[in-house]
Order: sequence, then structure tokens, then C-alpha cells
Amino acid sequence: MSELRKDIISGRWVIIASERSKRPDDFRRATEARKKETGKFCPFCPGSENKTPPEVFAIRKKGTKPNEAGWLVRVVPNKFPALQRGRTPIIQKSDDGLFFWMEGIGVHEVIIESPDHDRELADLALSHLEKIVETYRLRMIEIQTEKQYKYIHLFKNKGPEAGASLAHPHSQIVATPIVPKKNREELKSSSELKERFGQCIFCRLIEEELKRGERVVYQNDHFCVLTPFAPRFPFELRLYPRRHSPWFSEINKAEIKSLARTLKLVLSQLKKVLADPPYNFYIHQGPNPNSARDCPNGLREYYHWHFEIIPILSRVAGFEWGTGFYINPISPEAAAEFLRPKG
Amino acid sequence: MSELRKDIISGRWVIIASERSKRPDDFRRATEARKKETGKFCPFCPGSENKTPPEVFAIRKKGTKPNEAGWLVRVVPNKFPALQRGRTPIIQKSDDGLFFWMEGIGVHEVIIESPDHDRELADLALSHLEKIVETYRLRMIEIQTEKQYKYIHLFKNKGPEAGASLAHPHSQIVATPIVPKKNREELKSSSELKERFGQCIFCRLIEEELKRGERVVYQNDHFCVLTPFAPRFPFELRLYPRRHSPWFSEINKAEIKSLARTLKLVLSQLKKVLADPPYNFYIHQGPNPNSARDCPNGLREYYHWHFEIIPILSRVAGFEWGTGFYINPISPEAAAEFLRPKG
Repeated sequence: MSELRKDIISGRWVIIASERSKRPDDFRRATEARKKETGKFCPFCPGSENKTPPEVFAIRKKGTKPNEAGWLVRVVPNKFPALQRGRTPIIQKSDDGLFFWMEGIGVHEVIIESPDHDRELADLALSHLEKIVETYRLRMIEIQTEKQYKYIHLFKNKGPEAGASLAHPHSQIVATPIVPKKNREELKSSSELKERFGQCIFCRLIEEELKRGERVVYQNDHFCVLTPFAPRFPFELRLYPRRHSPWFSEINKAEIKSLARTLKLVLSQLKKVLADPPYNFYIHQGPNPNSARDCPNGLREYYHWHFEIIPILSRVAGFEWGTGFYINPISPEAAAEFLRPKG
Repeated sequence: MSELRKDIISGRWVIIASERSKRPDDFRRATEARKKETGKFCPFCPGSENKTPPEVFAIRKKGTKPNEAGWLVRVVPNKFPALQRGRTPIIQKSDDGLFFWMEGIGVHEVIIESPDHDRELADLALSHLEKIVETYRLRMIEIQTEKQYKYIHLFKNKGPEAGASLAHPHSQIVATPIVPKKNREELKSSSELKERFGQCIFCRLIEEELKRGERVVYQNDHFCVLTPFAPRFPFELRLYPRRHSPWFSEINKAEIKSLARTLKLVLSQLKKVLADPPYNFYIHQGPNPNSARDCPNGLREYYHWHFEIIPILSRVAGFEWGTGFYINPISPEAAAEFLRPKG
């Protein structure tokens, strides 16, 4: 089992998952090695269902059985999980008060987005994208029932440069036994800003951005896509639901359809304008609503779930790692202009 | 001139340096393009001194003139600076209180480490490394005299995967008009931990780590190199001075010699054990000591400058970007064992 460890100075927890690889050789240009993997055997393709742990969920063609071909979207536990299911871990502390750690309890699942090895999200039919979004929602709801999983993080890495270790299109869910630092900070800040502005800061920002227009890439009745005012990365995007809600799992049927359309449009624009870049996206949302201590009363009023989408076009380097400050060579207004669908 | 912008929710400032590149084409696989640059003209090689802005400092062979060949270490302003020299900028704020920005005032210099295009820090003679360390010190001291530069960040990116845009070995200094978020957090936390432990938390940690030994890679009279207890990245290192001091510029003559030796040793170990990996390193230190507001009394007692060294072996992906949580596939104890010089 992996271990969570806390850095006493930064307050940052890390996951030490040392079962996953062991020798310095395993680290030598791992990314380069991955790029050469095309053509090799794929455990996510239909017919290889027995090469993954048994599925926990699938949307299937009628008459097909679990762990056989015939699925359209398939969810399996990660074969090399960063965290494993279990009870609430106890925080351990060294006698000198310097070192803190706990068992690596959590959930780590892979959502195989389609049977097609070569078709990315932007290339799938809308009806299939809806199935993926519905799968995201159902997995969230199921994992939320176990309150030891304090925060549920859904993300996608596309391309080896974005950290994908397998080429077959997939998303991942990692549920952690603590609310991660970045999410805690965003919750604290949006709670304070709710007090200052008298309304959800995200609702306020969306309202103002739609009025200004210069950073709007796309909008429809349910969602809008913006370049943020102070983006870390070139062409970084935010996808916000226009209806206030702290949790992705509260998305309704009309919104599922609309989100599928919005994702397809924006990922297609990235593909077209930036020559099919590697990217990461992830959802930010409130902590597990069934974990009362981490979800204080009032959270419903001030937090607003959303997607953050990051094309991988430049490298994070010594300046960014050291300061948390980012240098972005293109303004979000110019990026929005390039990414806005024409005509 | 570039612009600093603040994200109201995260409190993070970014630098929008949009002069540097403009069209989506400039972002398409920039890293790949860089890799192919070997063999091309190098503005940092001797004989090309007029291809950089005029030097602000150099260590030269006797009888040679500024901006001609004959230098051993040369410091020039960055030709495409993220920040430019000027007076303390005023923070601007939109009427609705949502958007904050200021002029991109600061310093951005390049330290060309040697005339040799192909020789990395690990390969240079000790006497030359001492000249580089002395150059770091002298630039810090000079930039500190202008108190509008609140924080001075010295860093190195080696290899295109680590963000280096030119192959000729160089380090960089970026001085910012505000203390960056990460550094502010570390200052605040180490101040609180000083209260709790009754001594500098770094001194306390170093003492304990040297006693335990399992994360010690190297030590001598003046410095020690450790893998941190909760590292974000495989083989991440910390290089600490054993003498407490908040600022790198306070390094003395004996320590300069010792630091050159320590850097050579540890960078050579990385090169040997991890097959010459790309890496970033940077210095963490107190804010500009001449900027009274950012350097409260008492800072001398609780902050302890150090290097952080990060080999680039894996990719940061959607999990890390979204949560600030890191998954590290090797324990720091195993990493230290691999990196410790044998015999």
C-alpha cells in the first residue's frame, strides 16, 4: 500500500506510491519510452477485458456481459493504483513532531472512454460524449456514498506530454482521504469572497465576463467557456456551469447533453487551432457532500464546480516551481480570440 | 512591457508577457522544435557577444574588454525579459473589485555559466564552479540594493524538457515587485513553526535528518544534501547550508568553495545515476533584505535559505495541476540510497 506524507513547511501532502516502480532505470526518459509504445498491445481495447481489474461500471450494448467486449464506456480500478480502498486512515506523527503520514487509502479508477483506441473526445459522436459525462456523474455519486473519501478528483491526461501512460483515450478518478491543499485554499477563498461580494464569486465573475465578452470563447444556455483573467498557461480555459452548484454530481439531464456539446466544441477548437495539442483537464468541486466535517453548512452557497482545461504547450520550469508564479506568453484576450469558433 | 495579473480566487499572480510570442503557431510543439536546435547559431557562445544585450557583469581573463570574448562567466539582461527594470508599480483595480493588475516591473538576467557550449555544471572544474557561485552572490547583492525588487529568484533549467530555450548552459535571475505566493507561504509557515519549536524549523529538520541518516545523500562541514520526507518528484533534493542564514548573499568565502564542491558532487550523481536527466534547481531565500515591509524583524531568526533540485523524470498531469497533491513513485529513502556516492 502507498503512503501519504506531509511536508511540515508547505503543508503539502504527497502520495509515495513506491510499489509502482523501483530502480533508477525505470525513470530514465520514461516519457520518450512511452511515445514509442504505439502499435504495442493495449489493455484498454475490446477483447482485452481480462487484462484489467474487473469492471466496476460499464455502459454496454444489450445482451453483452460484464468483462467481455460490447461495452461503450467502461470503468475499471487502476491496475497500479496510487491509492487503495479502505477505512478512514489515522494520521501518524513522529515523536519529535516533524513527520506526519498515513496509509494511502482512497479510490483510483480509470474511465475507458470508448472502444476506439484512436478516437479522442473531440472526435466522438455527441451521443457517445453524453454517455461519458453520464458515467462521470454516476461514478461520482457512487464514490460519494463512502464518506472516508473526502475529495473526488476527476481528470484526463491526453498525450504522453500531458502525463498519459497509455494511449487509449481514458479519464481517471482519484478520491483522497483528505481535501487537497489547492482545493482547500479555493474553498476558503471563495467563502471569504462570498462574504465580501454578497454572492458566489464564480457567479459574479461569470456575469461580469459575459458582459465584457473579451475572454468569452463560447456560451450556451447551460455553460460558458472563458479564458481566465490571470491564466498560468497559454490558452488555459475554464468551463463553468451557469447554474450555481457546488458538485458536478448535481448536473441534470439537459445539462449532460449541453456539457457534451460544450466539451466537443471546445476540445475541437483546441485541436484545430493548436494542432492537436496534449492537454489536461480536471473538475474542481466541493468536498464529498457526505463528509460533514469537510462540507460546512454554507458551502452550497459559495462554491461552484467547474472544469479547468490546460493545453500543454510550454514547460513549467525553475521559475514556476520555485515561486508558484507563472509566466504566460499570450494574453487571455488574444487566446480567446484565437479559440472562439468562427462563423 | 509585460503585465502582472492577480487571480482573485487563488491569490496567485501571473506574468502576461505577450510580447514574447503571438500566434498559435508559435506554441505548436515548441519543445520539439527546440530539441532540433543543436548545431544552430548560439548567441551565448564567445564571439557572439553583440547578439545579447550588453553585459552587466563578467569574470574575464586579464586584458579583455566588456562585450568581447575572453569572459569566463558572463551576465546579460534577458533579450526577451519577462519583467523590465523600473520603479515600484502601483496595483490597479477594476471598479467592480474583481480584477487586479500592475506593470511588469522587475529584473530578468541570464548568467552564462562558461564559454563552453557543451559543458554542463557537473562537468566544469571546481575553480570554475566557484566563479559561478561568486557571480550568483554578486548579482544578488547588486539587485538587492534596489528595494522595489521584493524577491530575487535564482534558478536554472537544464534541457528542453526542463524548460531551457537555449542549449548553452545558463542560469537565470528574475526579481519580482511582489513576494511570490509560494515564498510568502513558506515564510509564514516557518515563522509559525519557529514559535512552535523554539528554533528555526530548517535547522531543526537538518539536525534530525543528519541523526536519522536515511535521507542523507551527502554532507560536509558547510552543506548537506537530503531527499525531503515528502518529495513531490522522484529524486527531488534539498541542499541546505548548515549555518543558519536567510539570504544566499550572506554566503562566505569558505562556503563558496564548499558549495561549488557540493553542487558538482550532487549534479554528477544525478547525471550518473539517472542518465544525465534534464533538471531544474532554484534558491529559496528571504525577501529582499532592503525591502523593510517584506522583511519583518525576526525573519533573520526563522528563515533559512536553500536550494531545491528537481530532476525532470515524470510529467506533472491532471491530478497534480488540479489538487496540488503529487504522486511520487519512489520513496525518498530509496532515492537517497541510489544517489549517495559509493566508496
